[in-house]
Amino acid sequence: MQTDVFSPELSSLVLAVPDNPLRALYPYNTRPGMLNLASGHPSRDAYDVEGLTEASHRATLDATAWSYGPSAGDPELIAALVALTPPRPQGHRLIVTSGAQQVVDLALRSLARPGSTVLLPEPVYPAILAICAAAGLRVSGYRVTAEDPDLTDLGRLLGQVGVSALYAQPTFSNPGGETWSLPMRKRLLELCAAYRVSVVEDDPYRFLSFAGAPPAALVELSAEVAGSVVIWAGSLSKILAPGLRLGWAAVPQAIAQPMTDLRQAGDLQPNSLAQRVALRYLELDRLDAHLSRVRKLYAARRDRLAAALARADFTLEPAAGGMFLFPALPEDARAEGLFERALDQDVLYAPGPAFALERGDHRLGNRLRLCFAGLDAETLGTAARRLVAALKE
Amino acid sequence: MQTDVFSPELSSLVLAVPDNPLRALYPYNTRPGMLNLASGHPSRDAYDVEGLTEASHRATLDATAWSYGPSAGDPELIAALVALTPPRPQGHRLIVTSGAQQVVDLALRSLARPGSTVLLPEPVYPAILAICAAAGLRVSGYRVTAEDPDLTDLGRLLGQVGVSALYAQPTFSNPGGETWSLPMRKRLLELCAAYRVSVVEDDPYRFLSFAGAPPAALVELSAEVAGSVVIWAGSLSKILAPGLRLGWAAVPQAIAQPMTDLRQAGDLQPNSLAQRVALRYLELDRLDAHLSRVRKLYAARRDRLAAALARADFTLEPAAGGMFLFPALPEDARAEGLFERALDQDVLYAPGPAFALERGDHRLGNRLRLCFAGLDAETLGTAARRLVAALKE
Repeated sequence: MQTDVFSPELSSLVLAVPDNPLRALYPYNTRPGMLNLASGHPSRDAYDVEGLTEASHRATLDATAWSYGPSAGDPELIAALVALTPPRPQGHRLIVTSGAQQVVDLALRSLARPGSTVLLPEPVYPAILAICAAAGLRVSGYRVTAEDPDLTDLGRLLGQVGVSALYAQPTFSNPGGETWSLPMRKRLLELCAAYRVSVVEDDPYRFLSFAGAPPAALVELSAEVAGSVVIWAGSLSKILAPGLRLGWAAVPQAIAQPMTDLRQAGDLQPNSLAQRVALRYLELDRLDAHLSRVRKLYAARRDRLAAALARADFTLEPAAGGMFLFPALPEDARAEGLFERALDQDVLYAPGPAFALERGDHRLGNRLRLCFAGLDAETLGTAARRLVAALKE
Repeated sequence: MQTDVFSPELSSLVLAVPDNPLRALYPYNTRPGMLNLASGHPSRDAYDVEGLTEASHRATLDATAWSYGPSAGDPELIAALVALTPPRPQGHRLIVTSGAQQVVDLALRSLARPGSTVLLPEPVYPAILAICAAAGLRVSGYRVTAEDPDLTDLGRLLGQVGVSALYAQPTFSNPGGETWSLPMRKRLLELCAAYRVSVVEDDPYRFLSFAGAPPAALVELSAEVAGSVVIWAGSLSKILAPGLRLGWAAVPQAIAQPMTDLRQAGDLQPNSLAQRVALRYLELDRLDAHLSRVRKLYAARRDRLAAALARADFTLEPAAGGMFLFPALPEDARAEGLFERALDQDVLYAPGPAFALERGDHRLGNRLRLCFAGLDAETLGTAARRLVAALKE
């Protein structure tokens, strides 16, 4: 069948959604022999397939897995997620979402009206830019660095008219692999409280800490900082399986209902089957052992990649957890054309400018985001050698 | 932990999202002994649990179920859904979503910018109003009736400034149980094409036809109507299981990418596990037999409820498929307080005004939406007797 179809005018908001530069890398990954340092995906050998399969079998035993359920999430799963949620001020409620991405989307759209401004860290995980564009939100970049312990730059930004929310990834950040110190966290909360700006804390890597517990979450600290408001976003994607598409939020009562209303408008409710599988998995009491195994695996991989990069004179701070390194090239390296030369060597990475707030901003041109989680230690060594070969070409 | 939390100002869009009057009925349903005619949920005895369980076991055999996948959906599932999709113009693509609700959300947000108008049928499924409010869209109601075969009223509405899209549920509609004739369908497409207004066709009940095939879908007819554009929305919720939260769209190429971008911004991608379960289910070749069983079950239930209502002098058109009757009360009935008197009789229904475009509009006050799918024929008979008793009180 064929017909003349007019091209409907599309909404300016939709047209403003930027291409995700990370998803644009996928086609390269299918080339035979390519080693992928680009994608922030958990390693397939880091899934607890036995536990997930057992949980799935149990989940299918009752009709709840097949039926409609509450928009805010399965109450039994919510009860089980309490143990995985940081301590939080009284009055925070938990709601289940389709990944932490949906928490951030619902939170920003609840807090910020079209035309208002959201503060984002620089560099930033680019999917957050898509949320802001689709909602008609402006963005401004901020930095939290040891050189500015009073966060005076951030204070100036918070004082601008029309700032509605601040998005933060203070623990094992993507792409930077950075973790903010406790004093920095408190200072940021004090500033946000003073300017009455709510904080969205994206915290999917908290359980992938390689050396002891990470600093307290912003949501925990908010209990000590009068007037601060934090919406905390967690995810099962990095600790259990991204295919379950389950995240959850700890959110002040006054924002939980609007976020749930918005979620119901968009897609009614979380996936019933996936929620029951997650619940039954958590009941198996395997998560601690599983996470302990994954942390050791990833720590060894980080060590291997960081060592290879240091030997080749990259500058880097070895992330204390999570999945990413964000090294700077050696001083004398030729950044131009490196991505293509790396492809020729069959190694794929995510170029630094993919994490800029604006397309065409090349100030991060000498940075590479490298995921150390997806390849085993030996293959990571090979990938690093290929990268160094591309550098020297 | 306790602290003073300021109440952040929320976005005016979020505050405008109306409460879903159907979800507000849920608490009544938990009363012991209550018979629920209100909820549009498939009957639990209409799930093919054996097939779904078998499909789940197969789905867990490969890591695809646990991993990230494409934002537009699992390519193997998309290939399997082709057989369930109406014929459509060349250049339409299929994308997988979290239920038909998400198709409508993504489609309307792609086609209509904030402040523009979407035309909705009266009465309307109220979750569509939530989509429009959250996106800042205005709504106007239209009717397709035999009294206005040229759809002159609709033509007048389409001619207004700022109309961006028309939402339609032409087959076994919720709540009306109505099905538009073929000439009406063509006339509507001609009008929409003339005014260059795109149509979103919500078609979750197509496979629940009790007497032969329903009229051709709008998307099929659009191939014959030059200039018409239709985005078709299908769902596995009513034919397989709502807990899978899977729908899909057939959408012109030029709109498929913007819808996928928006989807990626909101929650990245469809649920990988649920997609693999649906794929493995469709491979089992049980769907035709399952649907044949469900259609017979629901047809018998419709007959039982329609007969009981007719005996009690309700006015109704027995729906030729789907899940709903939308009868008018007998002429001499006292509508006021009926909902409460029905609760006293332990029977729950969805009051007509829940399907008005504006809260507080009581023109549908003498209508009731009754779902005949969720109770067996004998229990439906009891529910109808209780309703009639409430009416006579």
